[in-house]
Amino acid sequence: MSKEAKSNRLKARLPRGFSDRGPAEIAATRRMIETIRAVYERYGFEPVETPAIEYTDALGKFLPDQDRPNEGVFSFKDDDEQWLSLRYDLTAPLARYVAENFDQLPKPYRSYRFGWVFRNEKPGPGRFRQFMQFDADTVGSASPAADAEICMMAADTMEALGIPRGSYVVKVWNRKMLDGVMDAVPELTNAPEKRTTVLRSIDKVDRVKVRGLQQLLSDGRRDESGDFTEGAQLSTGANNFITMSSSATVVTGPIFKTYNTTLISNSDDPMVRLKIEEFESGKREPFDANSYRSFVEAYLEGKPIPSSLEVGLNQLSEISHLLQTAGYSDRVMIDRSVVRGLEYYTGPVYEVELTFETKDDKGWPVRFGSVAGGGRYDGLVGRFRNDEVPATGFSIGVSRLTAALVHLRKIDTKAEPGPVVVTVFEKDRLADYQRMAQTLRNAGIRAELYLGSGKMGPQLKYADKRGAPCVVIQGGDEKAKGEVQIKDLIEGAKAAAAIASNQEWRETRPAQFAVKEDKLVEAVREVLARHDVNWADS
Amino acid sequence: MSKEAKSNRLKARLPRGFSDRGPAEIAATRRMIETIRAVYERYGFEPVETPAIEYTDALGKFLPDQDRPNEGVFSFKDDDEQWLSLRYDLTAPLARYVAENFDQLPKPYRSYRFGWVFRNEKPGPGRFRQFMQFDADTVGSASPAADAEICMMAADTMEALGIPRGSYVVKVWNRKMLDGVMDAVPELTNAPEKRTTVLRSIDKVDRVKVRGLQQLLSDGRRDESGDFTEGAQLSTGANNFITMSSSATVVTGPIFKTYNTTLISNSDDPMVRLKIEEFESGKREPFDANSYRSFVEAYLEGKPIPSSLEVGLNQLSEISHLLQTAGYSDRVMIDRSVVRGLEYYTGPVYEVELTFETKDDKGWPVRFGSVAGGGRYDGLVGRFRNDEVPATGFSIGVSRLTAALVHLRKIDTKAEPGPVVVTVFEKDRLADYQRMAQTLRNAGIRAELYLGSGKMGPQLKYADKRGAPCVVIQGGDEKAKGEVQIKDLIEGAKAAAAIASNQEWRETRPAQFAVKEDKLVEAVREVLARHDVNWADS
Repeated sequence: MSKEAKSNRLKARLPRGFSDRGPAEIAATRRMIETIRAVYERYGFEPVETPAIEYTDALGKFLPDQDRPNEGVFSFKDDDEQWLSLRYDLTAPLARYVAENFDQLPKPYRSYRFGWVFRNEKPGPGRFRQFMQFDADTVGSASPAADAEICMMAADTMEALGIPRGSYVVKVWNRKMLDGVMDAVPELTNAPEKRTTVLRSIDKVDRVKVRGLQQLLSDGRRDESGDFTEGAQLSTGANNFITMSSSATVVTGPIFKTYNTTLISNSDDPMVRLKIEEFESGKREPFDANSYRSFVEAYLEGKPIPSSLEVGLNQLSEISHLLQTAGYSDRVMIDRSVVRGLEYYTGPVYEVELTFETKDDKGWPVRFGSVAGGGRYDGLVGRFRNDEVPATGFSIGVSRLTAALVHLRKIDTKAEPGPVVVTVFEKDRLADYQRMAQTLRNAGIRAELYLGSGKMGPQLKYADKRGAPCVVIQGGDEKAKGEVQIKDLIEGAKAAAAIASNQEWRETRPAQFAVKEDKLVEAVREVLARHDVNWADS
Repeated sequence: MSKEAKSNRLKARLPRGFSDRGPAEIAATRRMIETIRAVYERYGFEPVETPAIEYTDALGKFLPDQDRPNEGVFSFKDDDEQWLSLRYDLTAPLARYVAENFDQLPKPYRSYRFGWVFRNEKPGPGRFRQFMQFDADTVGSASPAADAEICMMAADTMEALGIPRGSYVVKVWNRKMLDGVMDAVPELTNAPEKRTTVLRSIDKVDRVKVRGLQQLLSDGRRDESGDFTEGAQLSTGANNFITMSSSATVVTGPIFKTYNTTLISNSDDPMVRLKIEEFESGKREPFDANSYRSFVEAYLEGKPIPSSLEVGLNQLSEISHLLQTAGYSDRVMIDRSVVRGLEYYTGPVYEVELTFETKDDKGWPVRFGSVAGGGRYDGLVGRFRNDEVPATGFSIGVSRLTAALVHLRKIDTKAEPGPVVVTVFEKDRLADYQRMAQTLRNAGIRAELYLGSGKMGPQLKYADKRGAPCVVIQGGDEKAKGEVQIKDLIEGAKAAAAIASNQEWRETRPAQFAVKEDKLVEAVREVLARHDVNWADS
């Protein structure tokens, strides 16, 4: 082939940030989805699905990355010049669906759905531009009981998937609390950009710890790699107040890290800092609304508590009470560090975090962290209507959770046994061999006819590669006797291994044997039973 | 609200050609997919999935609509200025996948996958811009046995889905035959556009019948609505030859229409026409390769038969022989009218057609027609490689087939019973009610807490709308006695209907009764058993 022709040839490659999925991953995801589905159905949630494409304006712009407001979403113009986008989550399309079908739906409306979502972002390790989410939402209820229910359901889901209690935690906080805390700080009153920086900083506290948060709220922070993140330039007093309001407990593994932060001085002198004591324990401090209120009152020095903070505290108290009564307070916990990136949240926000730490194949520590999250978004349906429609829901990151479950060995990733392979000994008798494969299939046995052009050697190699438990062979001699040969590949491999290592090996079960043609199904079944071959869906 | 604010409000609507899916449709599709999957696994096909987005050049341009060569596909530019597209089928991405992972895959490689595909086309009734396909392909085998196997698997799939033998047919023809027939016609030798028109005309023969095909091959055809389609302007001789070569049998319902076409004259005189006799019967004429060859030889008057036609005839003969031996020749039939629209086919092409005719709700006749199709595409993987990689496969149109199965009542579209609803009698005891719902769920009973703000009346209406079999009520009196009330909504509806129609109705089973709190699960189970309530996945 000429050089030019070569360079003209297409390269088979996927765009960055996309991936193919093989049998093991597909099977793992399918089993996971069935488990989640069963939990949601038991809670009375019903399925609904929306398409991958929506009008861009119907989706809105709520992605966290404000540096690139026009990016993050795959968009294109329709024939009629209207902008379309691939959905970036399953919540915005649900809001459109509910608004469009409002009168037909029961209210409150509980529903679930799973599917692919798309983000036009810079891909990285474990960060894809197409990934699967599994969502559940309750639309039409303003009650904190709806939020509590979602959190309980999230906990039930983790356990149904085999993640033991103590290895995960559902953390709950409230956007109204975050807003209220910022409303209490005069220098944040008319500073929307600073507020965004504050929220992003709090969002990072799990990773950067309390000292890192203090840096992010003041001059900025340089991380281990040398990258510098600009700070919010808050005064020391405001910095201390926000740090204390959002960092009582931090998840650091199976052990929680609790920070006892004591205010040494409320002065604006930058040299006066918060005294931070760290405690590690397996317990997490329960949330005490009254002491939280006192702490805010002390900071406000007589000024009234912002109403958003009052509302938030009441909602959290009610959620806490409901969780206590239902017996979930050991798994679902009020936690001051939850922010959530999406901008449509208006009330309680929650996050499911895997708390165990393990090591990867190379011995490096692995933490899976947040695998699901959500919150209340009372304004999203209302964008399409005259009235506000309260709503709350959460989303499981299916791909990340699958990886965690594989790591915990809660999902079987062993490939299923391959099909029985009927070999082609004489090419002109293809039709006979095809009928044999058909006979096996009609008996519920996975079977295939060899369709390549190789001789017996390559055919056996192919059967090995396919993971076939046995192959069926019929040459001229067998045909004359009305017989077929069955070669047990698993037994054969054992024998070969024994011979290679000079181990004693007694041929109790023949690796190859002949049977009459009409005993084919029976004989193959015997071989399958020998090796406990069970296909999932046959 | 002011007029301006109103006009600024977003409209909740889907773009044209997209649709939402409710619980019944989702459940029907899920059951269907499980059935298809089981058949494919039994044939030894393994799952593989590719993402929705690919490089535009990797997908190629093979859609049938040549009038708009740059359309048909949703495309957009990536950050690095490379063009990306949403996949328009599952075959082109498979070719990319196989080329990219060639050395790791067993050869031949049998695989299946289902998923959404996207066409940027004008939507119409039953014609969507996002729809689901379920594909199976064998890559790396040039053997007609691979094509025969796919056709047999297609037949098995239809029957596994409950479509009885005789209500469907798998039709097989060959692109090489179509090419060969056109190669035999001198006036089509260097006329690629005319050839496309000829192929499209043949593709329509099921609908327009033999006389319509003759019009499309000559001056053109005006349909019932008055629309005119340009003809291929063939000479009468060529017209007759192509008509006879492609129209022996036409599917017109449970009865096949067989055309006995007799050549009256081979002259080019436009007045001399083919004599067409129609026969209707429940049988379909078997394909006879020898008589087909003689017919072509007669037209060629001594000139050699085009080699593509020879190859095609041999492939069809072998497929026919394999189907006969495997006992499939009553369901899979060689049929001269199969063309298939996609341009990547190179050999055998096949189509699954539902042959029964039924009536819709308004008494109009409904025919579902083609629900699956495919063929051999030996060049598609080779676009990425030095060598040609033979491949064959087919695709089920899941949405259309679902509609057909619903019509045949082979899929249960009855909504599942709703969950048991625990009502909220006293708002301050929400936590208690939530615990009751939790108790029911822990016993495997689908149950939900009422989360709205309505009083008892609206709550019972809500339970009705949800299809709840019963509701649980606990007021102050019951609480004092340690009891709960259970209201059987199905029994209650029967009683109400009887009273309304003055029918005799004896209260053998009370529609409402009280039980001790700790007998809640037992009592609800009793009500569920009364009415045979069984949820699919609890």
